[in-house]
Amino acid sequence: MKIVIAPDSFKGSLSAVEAADAIAKGIRKALPDAEAICLPVADGGEGTMETLVTATGGEVRKVLATGPLGNGVEAEYGVLGDGKTCVIEMATASGLARIPEGKLSPLKATTYGTGELIKHALDAGYTSFILAIGGSATNDAGAGMLQALGAKLLDKEGKDIGFGGGQLDRVAKIDLDRFDKRIAKSSFLIASDVQNPLVGQEGASHIFGPQKGAGEREVLLLDRNLTHWADVVEKTVGIRLHDQPGAGAAGGIGGAFQAFFPGEMKRGIDVVLEYSGLRDYLVDADLVITGEGKVDHQTSSGKTPLGVAQAAYEQDVPTIIIAGSIGDGVEVLYEYGVLSIHSLMKEPLPLEEVMEKASELLEFSAEQVARTHFYHIKQGGPSYAD
Amino acid sequence: MKIVIAPDSFKGSLSAVEAADAIAKGIRKALPDAEAICLPVADGGEGTMETLVTATGGEVRKVLATGPLGNGVEAEYGVLGDGKTCVIEMATASGLARIPEGKLSPLKATTYGTGELIKHALDAGYTSFILAIGGSATNDAGAGMLQALGAKLLDKEGKDIGFGGGQLDRVAKIDLDRFDKRIAKSSFLIASDVQNPLVGQEGASHIFGPQKGAGEREVLLLDRNLTHWADVVEKTVGIRLHDQPGAGAAGGIGGAFQAFFPGEMKRGIDVVLEYSGLRDYLVDADLVITGEGKVDHQTSSGKTPLGVAQAAYEQDVPTIIIAGSIGDGVEVLYEYGVLSIHSLMKEPLPLEEVMEKASELLEFSAEQVARTHFYHIKQGGPSYAD
Repeated sequence: MKIVIAPDSFKGSLSAVEAADAIAKGIRKALPDAEAICLPVADGGEGTMETLVTATGGEVRKVLATGPLGNGVEAEYGVLGDGKTCVIEMATASGLARIPEGKLSPLKATTYGTGELIKHALDAGYTSFILAIGGSATNDAGAGMLQALGAKLLDKEGKDIGFGGGQLDRVAKIDLDRFDKRIAKSSFLIASDVQNPLVGQEGASHIFGPQKGAGEREVLLLDRNLTHWADVVEKTVGIRLHDQPGAGAAGGIGGAFQAFFPGEMKRGIDVVLEYSGLRDYLVDADLVITGEGKVDHQTSSGKTPLGVAQAAYEQDVPTIIIAGSIGDGVEVLYEYGVLSIHSLMKEPLPLEEVMEKASELLEFSAEQVARTHFYHIKQGGPSYAD
Repeated sequence: MKIVIAPDSFKGSLSAVEAADAIAKGIRKALPDAEAICLPVADGGEGTMETLVTATGGEVRKVLATGPLGNGVEAEYGVLGDGKTCVIEMATASGLARIPEGKLSPLKATTYGTGELIKHALDAGYTSFILAIGGSATNDAGAGMLQALGAKLLDKEGKDIGFGGGQLDRVAKIDLDRFDKRIAKSSFLIASDVQNPLVGQEGASHIFGPQKGAGEREVLLLDRNLTHWADVVEKTVGIRLHDQPGAGAAGGIGGAFQAFFPGEMKRGIDVVLEYSGLRDYLVDADLVITGEGKVDHQTSSGKTPLGVAQAAYEQDVPTIIIAGSIGDGVEVLYEYGVLSIHSLMKEPLPLEEVMEKASELLEFSAEQVARTHFYHIKQGGPSYAD
């Protein structure tokens, strides 16, 4: 029996790696002889780097970088098992989690540290990049990243502008003379599910600004600044980002990649499926178990389970989801190759307690699911009533 | 595919009949062509009559009877589908639920109404009885029942004693001259798991008195009265109930059956399995789904799921349990033929909300379990990814 274990993280309690581990334990209790392959996944958001590094047997590099508010942070990026591809999670340098509680500052937050991570990897000789850009604390249209990579953002008087989206109205010129030349010779795969344009009512500032701490006035200011920035970008490289789908991703860094970097943007889960090697492991698998903290019928949650199920179904492998919380209407997931959906809950408990016990609950649940599913496998199936 | 659905009640939310119905709905969603046989069961306690009547296609008779405190109550008994066997739940006439909150009165509560039910059934011509004696409010050693059936319980002056265990010290003589003669020609199967003796530290008054409202002093008084009663019974019929296992069941009514009725006492779940016809339905079944509000590794809970699983395993049919709440250590149940144990929970919710939604939760859970289990059944198995 070959079982592929490919969960996302259970937010607030288990990383994808920990979740896969708990599920594997449960499977082995039910079926000691089964081959249980742990392949934690992510949907392009938090944990993407860790899961891809784990899945491919790669490694993690620690790097000192500039945090979103200019403070120094210990960030990291991953090198996949192929020894060639770097995975950079923007949030590790420029993420919300890098800002102390109550200190969100959307006008000042910069993507400079993300640029430093790229530079560090370029210096180490890498030319192939995956960028996971979820969880950013920034709304600077990627200006800081460009600065870290050598671009000069100058005001009318030829002086460098400062950090953050609040400064972008001052940009008069983008000087690319010293912009890192290795970028043009590298490839950048941006993992992002965000299709929002850079500016306007559906743009970065209006839609994502508030969760980064922007009040009503700041949202308007940021949107105006990003519009000005987009005008200057258009003048500089001839690319119009204003209404460009995806340009509004991660405070507008999506647009910076579109205008100044060679590469493409793909759905996070697709990037993960491509690089994790999941499809290879699915060959001849009997079952896939995936999961996530919450699964519902909307694409907003459960992206990982759904992506995994679709990939598995291409190879005729059934997928079982184990989730912490199952919303209404999940039956639509059957159409995407999901065989069934189980919860790790085993009694009425408040959320906090469930989170504390998530690992043992997941293990128990996986054991039960495996016992239920593999009863009809006579050789090596679950043993009972000995 | 043939699936036998044999849950107990989910206490506080669903009767066994309702639980079976919800499970059947879920099964039919997963496997529209499956034969789903609903056979709600009980462990001899509350719901035993209803489940046996339902399982056998019998009927329910309404009877006006004397409640535990002498008030009139509308009680009922069941006649099984064989048209011969009556099922009497003692609690319907003499149960805790028949007493308004705060009015428990263990010294006064009488089993007279239970005797009336038996008399009513005898009058209707029945001679075969099953008695489920759980949930009683009484501690009168069955004296009231004997009175209702014609026995005279007389004090020193030859006067009838009153109702309740508090009067039993007055009994000087048990006059059986007018005790219903049809009883000796009938059979009585007492469904009870209680093995306690009539008196002493492990007796009816000490162990079950407090839950019927007896304080410390009343427990001692009742135990003394029941000891006196047992002395008189011994003098009258030569049977010593004092230390007799089972005599302490249901406030000592167990002893009255042992001394004055032909018949035997059996574990509740065994009586239910015998009379529900479950074993016949198990022939050629592919799966049994059973369940209960709470399942743990102790025999105190989960008696029904365990009994069902054991019966199913005798015929090589796997049993899956769905419970509201799963305790620790339930893995021991595998040894009794339980394949796996699932919870109906699908998200962290407080108990009250789970109880409110129990029916839909159970339906969803049963659907998922069926989908997971029957994947390997190619013909008529769960459909997905159409």
